[in-house]
Amino acid sequence: MRIAFQGVHGAYSEAAAEKHFGRKNRFIGCYNIADVFSAVERGDVDFGFVPVENSIEGPVTQTYDSLVNGKLFVHGENIIRISHCLIGFGGRKLRNISGVYSHPQALAQCSRFIHRNRMVEIPFYDTAASAKHIKDEGLKDFGAIASERAARAYGLSVIMRGIENDRMNYTRFFAISREMEAHDGKGTKSSFAFVTTNKPGALYNAIGCFVKNGINMTYLQSRPIIGKPWNYIFYAECEGSMKSRPMSRACEELAKNAKSFRFLGSYAKAKVRV
Amino acid sequence: MRIAFQGVHGAYSEAAAEKHFGRKNRFIGCYNIADVFSAVERGDVDFGFVPVENSIEGPVTQTYDSLVNGKLFVHGENIIRISHCLIGFGGRKLRNISGVYSHPQALAQCSRFIHRNRMVEIPFYDTAASAKHIKDEGLKDFGAIASERAARAYGLSVIMRGIENDRMNYTRFFAISREMEAHDGKGTKSSFAFVTTNKPGALYNAIGCFVKNGINMTYLQSRPIIGKPWNYIFYAECEGSMKSRPMSRACEELAKNAKSFRFLGSYAKAKVRV
Repeated sequence: MRIAFQGVHGAYSEAAAEKHFGRKNRFIGCYNIADVFSAVERGDVDFGFVPVENSIEGPVTQTYDSLVNGKLFVHGENIIRISHCLIGFGGRKLRNISGVYSHPQALAQCSRFIHRNRMVEIPFYDTAASAKHIKDEGLKDFGAIASERAARAYGLSVIMRGIENDRMNYTRFFAISREMEAHDGKGTKSSFAFVTTNKPGALYNAIGCFVKNGINMTYLQSRPIIGKPWNYIFYAECEGSMKSRPMSRACEELAKNAKSFRFLGSYAKAKVRV
Repeated sequence: MRIAFQGVHGAYSEAAAEKHFGRKNRFIGCYNIADVFSAVERGDVDFGFVPVENSIEGPVTQTYDSLVNGKLFVHGENIIRISHCLIGFGGRKLRNISGVYSHPQALAQCSRFIHRNRMVEIPFYDTAASAKHIKDEGLKDFGAIASERAARAYGLSVIMRGIENDRMNYTRFFAISREMEAHDGKGTKSSFAFVTTNKPGALYNAIGCFVKNGINMTYLQSRPIIGKPWNYIFYAECEGSMKSRPMSRACEELAKNAKSFRFLGSYAKAKVRV
């Protein structure tokens, strides 16, 4: 199978996609998350694999925007632990490294390590790409903060492992597909996108459709509607399958009262929930 | 008065802070949003002024995290329209510019202009700082995407105005302070942070405290709780003042049933709502 992910070779997303689909597939790096969705829509790949939420940073907004405004479905879920490494040229020691390149989120997540070692921070657009950058430019006094996989990908060495402030650092991913997935059985979750009317209490009544049918909503996220400032589209996740009567009843009620409603898939919940 | 904002001289935040407080104040740039909160907490400044939400990008997550986990209050709200300019050295024309520096969000918001003019994108950590960078480095074949104010701040020229894809591009800001604000009267809004119990229906019941007291909730946002993956703290905005009986009753009920609850202030709603 062909699977698209966001980033360059060595990215955390690539590691997560391999975990989800198995190694014996072709993994294709894309420039951004919207490109992953486009590749799936055009049929260039069988699946996309995109980050949804990080346990420290929160939602990955580009993923929600592409999902709620697009035509694709959620096909599966997975979670990996994010452990950052300080990467540099072979033979370099911690004391040789005066500055670090990485994505601003990774720099923030390793702020204590960086301050303790009095390193200069250089924000870069991607973690794995920052490893590629120090290699390509021959920056031997600099390091990159990225995955162990990125070190291997660019012939660099891991100078130190697990340099993040908080070890409870997990990222949740979705496999996305052109086909609607209607998984069933224990541990099934379902995703939805909806826009409520502008009446007071509309969101309360929308959530009520699930609550009154005994459905547990585990996640709710609002995203702006482009071109309509201060109007929102909601993304929700509930326990259970669309194939169950209470879930389909809840969705019928919500669809009837909402301005718009879209079912995004029922899929097996990721097993690692920390 | 002394007011802290995030960014360097010429930032959109600086323009918004001037609009809110008036020009005759001292505006102090901070490296990041957490630093703005720290400056207010320490008493180095009278107020902070921070972006809360953009009508295209959505919530500014660092602001919510500092607000819901901190000790400060919301003192006021303002909204400005974001209009991006292509900035370069004096005398340079559009056809001379082969690449543009800017923050990834600004690059994304001007993607059509960039593609139409076949420019290379160079992601940078800040819009105004990207203008400073091309000036400092003498990059005459490059432009920066930033505010008109940034062009003035660094002695550069505006090559083209209003290059954003979507003109409905607004950013909402909060003035933050050490003192609790309890504004009253028409057009008052109130902000809260709360954590619900893990019982099914807990969020529904929390929102219900407001709905049943006739209070209109205008905004709801969830943020991860650091160190407790897949647990969330909610940020809510409602119409009305804490000084009104229905609002204080709603808060009493919510505080009684929630794991934690904090009132963040009642303040005058921004007048420009688009």
